[in-house]
Amino acid sequence: MRIEELETPAIVVDLDVMENNIRSMAEYSRDHNLNLRPHTKTHKTPEIARMQLNAGARGVTVAKVGEAEVMSGAAIEDILVHYPIFGQTKLARLAALAPKRKILVAVDSKVTAEAISSAIPNGSSIGLLAEFDSGMRRCGVSSPEEVKALAEAISRLPNVRFSGISTYPGHIWAEPDKQGGPMEELSSLIGEIKSQLAASGIACEVVSAGSTPAAKTSHLVDGLTEMRPGTYVFNDRNTVGVGACALEDCALRVLVTVVSTAVKGRAIVDGGSKTFSGDRWLSGDKTGFGHVVEHPGIEFASMSEEHGNLDLAQSGYAPNIGDRLSIIPNHVCACVNMHDSLYFHRDGTVEVSWQVAGRGRVR
Amino acid sequence: MRIEELETPAIVVDLDVMENNIRSMAEYSRDHNLNLRPHTKTHKTPEIARMQLNAGARGVTVAKVGEAEVMSGAAIEDILVHYPIFGQTKLARLAALAPKRKILVAVDSKVTAEAISSAIPNGSSIGLLAEFDSGMRRCGVSSPEEVKALAEAISRLPNVRFSGISTYPGHIWAEPDKQGGPMEELSSLIGEIKSQLAASGIACEVVSAGSTPAAKTSHLVDGLTEMRPGTYVFNDRNTVGVGACALEDCALRVLVTVVSTAVKGRAIVDGGSKTFSGDRWLSGDKTGFGHVVEHPGIEFASMSEEHGNLDLAQSGYAPNIGDRLSIIPNHVCACVNMHDSLYFHRDGTVEVSWQVAGRGRVR
Repeated sequence: MRIEELETPAIVVDLDVMENNIRSMAEYSRDHNLNLRPHTKTHKTPEIARMQLNAGARGVTVAKVGEAEVMSGAAIEDILVHYPIFGQTKLARLAALAPKRKILVAVDSKVTAEAISSAIPNGSSIGLLAEFDSGMRRCGVSSPEEVKALAEAISRLPNVRFSGISTYPGHIWAEPDKQGGPMEELSSLIGEIKSQLAASGIACEVVSAGSTPAAKTSHLVDGLTEMRPGTYVFNDRNTVGVGACALEDCALRVLVTVVSTAVKGRAIVDGGSKTFSGDRWLSGDKTGFGHVVEHPGIEFASMSEEHGNLDLAQSGYAPNIGDRLSIIPNHVCACVNMHDSLYFHRDGTVEVSWQVAGRGRVR
Repeated sequence: MRIEELETPAIVVDLDVMENNIRSMAEYSRDHNLNLRPHTKTHKTPEIARMQLNAGARGVTVAKVGEAEVMSGAAIEDILVHYPIFGQTKLARLAALAPKRKILVAVDSKVTAEAISSAIPNGSSIGLLAEFDSGMRRCGVSSPEEVKALAEAISRLPNVRFSGISTYPGHIWAEPDKQGGPMEELSSLIGEIKSQLAASGIACEVVSAGSTPAAKTSHLVDGLTEMRPGTYVFNDRNTVGVGACALEDCALRVLVTVVSTAVKGRAIVDGGSKTFSGDRWLSGDKTGFGHVVEHPGIEFASMSEEHGNLDLAQSGYAPNIGDRLSIIPNHVCACVNMHDSLYFHRDGTVEVSWQVAGRGRVR
C-alpha cells in the first residue's frame, strides 16, 4: 500500500529517516562513551524501542508505570521510570516488575524513596536516582547538599539501592555549547554534587541527563554517563526551530486532506488539536501549528478539535477539496499520543503499522 | 470504591451534576420547541449519549465517521456527522451505515455533496445539511446565494436529500443575547437564507446551530429548529469563564496527586498535557491550565507532558507529597480525549466506569 491510499488523518513515519536518527544518536553516544537511554514517551511503541536498543541503547526511559509495563511486556530488560512515582497501587505494580527487569526510578524526596522501598518485597531491589534541578524548576532537589542528604537516606533504605543522580535540563534549548553557557553550568553543578557524595563515601554510578535539543552537546558535560533524549527518533518543528536538526531529519508527518475551501483565503484540513495536539511552536515565533511540507508558505493559523485552519495568504496555494498535505507537527510526542497506530513507509510504500501500545497508559 | 482510592491521574464525573446538566439542557430545548442534538465529541461515550437521548435529545452529533460507527454500534439511530467528510474509504464506511441508521452530514461544497452522493448505493439515502459560515471563518459557505446554489445542487443529486441548513457559531462566546448582538445577526442571516431557498421552492426542514456558550440563548434565533451543544454535559473552566455556567455545574474533575515539592513555591502533580490537553483558558485571562478545586488560589502555571506545575505563591497551600487535588480542566472535550475510560460517582462513591469508546477514532 502507498501512503497516498491511507485514510486521513494518519501519521506516517519515513523509516529511512527514523533509522538514520536512531543510528546517528547511537553513534554519538558511543563516540563519547555515554550510555544512551532513549525516552520512549515520544513513540510509546515497543517495536521502536527495540530498534533503539538494537542500535546500541542501553535501556529505555519512561514516565509512567503503565509505560514501564508495556515495555516490560515487550521483553525490554532495562527500564528507567524517570518520574517520582507515588501511590500504593502504582508502587505495587512497579514492585511486580522488579523481580524480572532492571528497574530504576528517579526520585526527589525521601518520602517517595521510602514509599518505593516499602513497596518492594524482600529479595527484590530497584535502583533509585536522586533527581536534582538544573534550572527547569519542575522536579529535582535544589542543592548539592540536598542531593547528598537524599542519597544518604536512600542508602539506608531496604530493597532499593542508590544508583546515581539525574536531571532533566529541558530548559536548555538554545546554544547549549556556548562558552560559559548552560552545559558548562551543568558540568560545574554535577562536579559539586559528586564532591559532596564522594565526601560521604557514596558511590555514584550513574549521572544521567538529556533531552533532544542539547543531546549532541552532552559530551561537554563533565562526568555525565548517560543521556535520555526522546524526540530525536522522529524530530519535529520545535527541534528544527531550536537548530538541533534540519527539516529533512523530521521522520514523521501527519497526512491530512483538505475538506473545505468555502472561506476565502483559507483551507480546512481534517486534523485539529485532537490529531496534532494543541502545542505551540515554542522554539519558533510561537505561531503556527505545524509546517506544511508541500507549501511552506501556508500558515497553519488555528485549530479546533477536528479542523486545521490554514491561512493561504502568503502561500500562492490554490486549494481543492481532496488535496492531501503532509504536516510536520510542532511537538511530535504530544501528536503521537493522539493516535492508536502509526504507519511506517519507505519511499512512500507502507511496510508496517505498529500500535502506539503505551498510549493512554496515564497511570 | 471511593474516588479517593482511584489511581491518579483519573477523570471522575459527578453523576448528579452531569444528570442535572443533561436534564437542564433537555428542558430548555423542550421549552423552546427546539430539537436537541448534543455533540458527542465532548464525551465520545455511547452510554452518555444514551442518557442524553433518554432525557429528550432527538439524535446525536459527531465529527468523524469512526465516531458515527461507535454511536451506531451502540444502537443510536439518528446521527449527524457535522463535518464535510471526504475520501473514498471514509465515504464507503459512511454509506455502510446509511441503510440501518438515519444519517445526516453537513457539507459546504458541491464537490463533497457529489462525492457523498456517489458513495451511497441506490436504495439508501442520507440527508445533507448545507453549512454556512456565521462568522467563525472555518467551514461553511459565505452568503445566502451560495447556500441556495449548494441546496439546489444537492437537490439534483441521487441518494442524498437536502435536509436543511446548519452553522457552527463557535465564535459567539460573550453576551450572545445583547441587543443587536450575535444572535440577532444570526437570526437575520438565517432569515435571508430561508427567503432565498423559499424563492427557489426548496423546503428547509432543519435549521441547526449551537455550541454550549450560546446554547441557552438559542431561542433568540428566529427560525432555528435544532441546537447542538456538546460541552454542557460536563462543562469546564472555559464555560465558567464565559459565564454560561457556574463552577458547581462542572461535573468533571481530574484527580491528581502531588508527586514533587522539591522546588520551592511549586508543587508538581502527576498530570500534564497528556492528561489535561494543552488548552489555554481562552474565555478567561488565557493563563492557567485548570481550576484547583480545593485551593482556588493555586495557579496551574505550566505543564510538561506528564507534569503539572502548580505555582503556590498566592494560595497559602503547603503541599505534601501524596496530597490529592481535583482540577477542573480548561477544555473538557480535549481532556476526555486523552483518557481511555472515565469514572462516574455519586457523592464520591464510584458507581461505574465507562470506556471512551470514540476516543482515537480519528478517521
